[in-house]
Amino acid sequence: MTYFDAASSAPPHPVAREAFLAAWEEGWADPARLHREGRRARLLLDAAREGTADLLGCRPDELSFTTSGTRALHTGIAGSLAGRRRVGRRLLVSAVEHSAVLHAAEAHRAAGGTAAEVAPDRTGRTAVADWSTALTPDTALAVLQSANHEVGTEQPVEEVAEVCGTAGVPLLVDAAQSVPWGPVAGRWSLLAASAHKWGGPGGVGLLAVRKGTRFAPPEPHDEREAGRAPGFPSLPAVVAAAASLRAVRADADTEAARLGELVRLVRERVEREVPDCQVVGHPELRLPHVVTFSCLYADGEALLDGLGREGFSVSSGSSCTSSTLTPSHVLRAMGVLSEGNVRVSLPRSTTAAEVERFLTAVPRVVAAVRDRLAGPGGGAAEAGVSAAWARHPGAPETGASDAGPAELAGAAEAAEVEVDALGRRCPIPVIELAKALPGLPVGSVVRVLADDAAARLDIPAWCEMRGQEYLGEEPLAGAGPAGSAYRVRRSR
Amino acid sequence: MTYFDAASSAPPHPVAREAFLAAWEEGWADPARLHREGRRARLLLDAAREGTADLLGCRPDELSFTTSGTRALHTGIAGSLAGRRRVGRRLLVSAVEHSAVLHAAEAHRAAGGTAAEVAPDRTGRTAVADWSTALTPDTALAVLQSANHEVGTEQPVEEVAEVCGTAGVPLLVDAAQSVPWGPVAGRWSLLAASAHKWGGPGGVGLLAVRKGTRFAPPEPHDEREAGRAPGFPSLPAVVAAAASLRAVRADADTEAARLGELVRLVRERVEREVPDCQVVGHPELRLPHVVTFSCLYADGEALLDGLGREGFSVSSGSSCTSSTLTPSHVLRAMGVLSEGNVRVSLPRSTTAAEVERFLTAVPRVVAAVRDRLAGPGGGAAEAGVSAAWARHPGAPETGASDAGPAELAGAAEAAEVEVDALGRRCPIPVIELAKALPGLPVGSVVRVLADDAAARLDIPAWCEMRGQEYLGEEPLAGAGPAGSAYRVRRSR
Repeated sequence: MTYFDAASSAPPHPVAREAFLAAWEEGWADPARLHREGRRARLLLDAAREGTADLLGCRPDELSFTTSGTRALHTGIAGSLAGRRRVGRRLLVSAVEHSAVLHAAEAHRAAGGTAAEVAPDRTGRTAVADWSTALTPDTALAVLQSANHEVGTEQPVEEVAEVCGTAGVPLLVDAAQSVPWGPVAGRWSLLAASAHKWGGPGGVGLLAVRKGTRFAPPEPHDEREAGRAPGFPSLPAVVAAAASLRAVRADADTEAARLGELVRLVRERVEREVPDCQVVGHPELRLPHVVTFSCLYADGEALLDGLGREGFSVSSGSSCTSSTLTPSHVLRAMGVLSEGNVRVSLPRSTTAAEVERFLTAVPRVVAAVRDRLAGPGGGAAEAGVSAAWARHPGAPETGASDAGPAELAGAAEAAEVEVDALGRRCPIPVIELAKALPGLPVGSVVRVLADDAAARLDIPAWCEMRGQEYLGEEPLAGAGPAGSAYRVRRSR
Repeated sequence: MTYFDAASSAPPHPVAREAFLAAWEEGWADPARLHREGRRARLLLDAAREGTADLLGCRPDELSFTTSGTRALHTGIAGSLAGRRRVGRRLLVSAVEHSAVLHAAEAHRAAGGTAAEVAPDRTGRTAVADWSTALTPDTALAVLQSANHEVGTEQPVEEVAEVCGTAGVPLLVDAAQSVPWGPVAGRWSLLAASAHKWGGPGGVGLLAVRKGTRFAPPEPHDEREAGRAPGFPSLPAVVAAAASLRAVRADADTEAARLGELVRLVRERVEREVPDCQVVGHPELRLPHVVTFSCLYADGEALLDGLGREGFSVSSGSSCTSSTLTPSHVLRAMGVLSEGNVRVSLPRSTTAAEVERFLTAVPRVVAAVRDRLAGPGGGAAEAGVSAAWARHPGAPETGASDAGPAELAGAAEAAEVEVDALGRRCPIPVIELAKALPGLPVGSVVRVLADDAAARLDIPAWCEMRGQEYLGEEPLAGAGPAGSAYRVRRSR
């Protein structure tokens, strides 16, 4: 098995295990106690704090160990909002933050506050000018990730921190994905990270709150960790987190260059060798280890399953995976295709041979999934969609592969046709559209009825990829919250 | 070193280490992911949940793994209060709960709710009738520990759960100290516990919420652990917690009997061999491994230090330890002596020989601390207090050892004398009282001025122990929040 899901959780670093075991013997007592075992635990905790603060670029007394990155974000956001309640109750976040941030924003709205989002461009990157505009005087806190966890795009954190500093608004940086690669530059006020993202153990997050930042611990009072992380700590885990961060930082530059090269290769080859595939995320300003692409006419769960059978563990932001019914909010905010989405995130040990094996498997797996979806009884194969890919892997996208069914090919005048995909999950609505449109004369309109939330994202994305004209969406009465009619005109 | 602070954190059980290491290899991936590594982690998590639920006497889907016992309590309380907000906003807790519960009650008050306390008797035990009376119709939640963490007293949890059930109020049981010894009987609605109390790792708490209990997760939305514990789990720690709980339960009965016998021995011997010492907590209805006593004219930190030099790690609820300025709220609620407080909590491996060594050391250490406090320049030795103990260890408490300084012994008529102990920390105010009173004629009154919060507890406790009459306390203007005058009449 080759594990390519490091952005979800990295395989543990060997140093983490060693440090954990050493601290297991020495660090099980309560560091708040005065006895020998307690003082010994305290020494370990203090050393871990100093070492980690150094690697983050903050002071030890600014750093609290939380029990997860999610907790660090929740506490950082709630504590900042409480501390600056008099200034205002507006929270500003990018639309591509981790769900932990967006859920904290929801909770803040539910508690009577307001929350606004800064939208990214199609690469997933937000613009400094947009932050500048959005920083109203009543903004209590801004939150921006250093780099996106799904598509790898880096954010202009240093510049946004400057803009926030000028506006007098603290900036919380979610550095979960980038901290293994280096410290976050600039005048950020708060920073959150998560140890299991760098090969440390689960159960350890970091929350740094720079001196001078207004902060009111949101939980019931507790003396540990400056009141920012109540409860008895997992000290061996904290020690393991600190030791492994130091270890991964030691060769971060060489490893980043090496993995960056492999990621570049994946981007190029997938784009070239998988037809109707969209590689997403910024091409240069990106994490070294993450690459994401989406494939028309394929569903994410089937791709994960197919790649799994080939020995690769990856993840997907598609809505058509069993754990979720809506597509990734990141892809949605970027306005890119979500169907057939695959995120590849390379752990540090990844070899070129493993990546080569993966690149050989991907076109085969995608084609197999497409063939299955296009099976007998009205599948895409009838429309020539899947068959065309199978015949011409890597062929340039032309109208030729869009040759429609015989019974429609003879129509000469523009028509309006309705395709009913109600009750059908992604990627079926797009497949039905792709089957219907090429058979109609240029200028004809297909009206796709769909109630899968992914259609809202994937039908416009399909139009853009295929050079067809997306006319818009109308709500469809009685078809549920996501029920809509999407109109597409054949323009070539 | 002999570690007698298991109630604070138990030394890790060997099974915990083994289970942790096994899960370290298998359980580092995200159990929410669909790939092989994720599914493997999920299997471990499910197995840990089933095994632990079985040991708690609840269903697996009622049990969430939190990141600490404190988190389990905070979430359990906040979630219950939010879920029953329409019923009322009154929280009812015993006055001897863990500080995590009392801090949650403070937070609830600060948020506009109300919180009431059920007082214990002098053994630390609350009465079922008091719960019955206190359960008003607007009570949203009741919280009661299964056994007290400082003095070991068991609470009538099963009966209180019945009373709560009848009143329609959910009962949250803090079972942190008792769960290693067995399940909590009765109709409780929620239960919290903490793995490092039974020899499991830090970073794992348990929160059980029985079906039918109203509960609204208080944090931002998160899909993990039924929304009750956001953030990436420390799966190896969870697995280690489950395995070690099973291991400690396997011989809990024999170990409880063995340690219970050692604790009984400590109670008897300390009471007999340390003069002016009060063993606190219920004599029979108690945890098998915890015993607590307080020593007049001694300060907790010095005792901890002295016992530490003799090789024993214990803890103290005295105010005169460096981490706190107020005496333990548990001792305060019980109305027992807090000065010179020592809690001994035996880990499972404790031998009779270790306890014997401890019992030999205690009288020596207490006498040394008392001698130091009574040193040259007005110490208790001048009043014959410490000297008397040194001469007659184990002597029955009589007026003889209270022989006062020569200059006062001759006074024949009752007088009122003022002793100024302002600015002096515990146990000095009590020492000053003990020096002054015996030198005055019977019927005389000593007025002790003190601003150490412990005096409020320890002066009445001294009176009761010495058979003197406590007349009461008057606030003292300009002497800070704890500044008071305490009046004591010599009655024998």
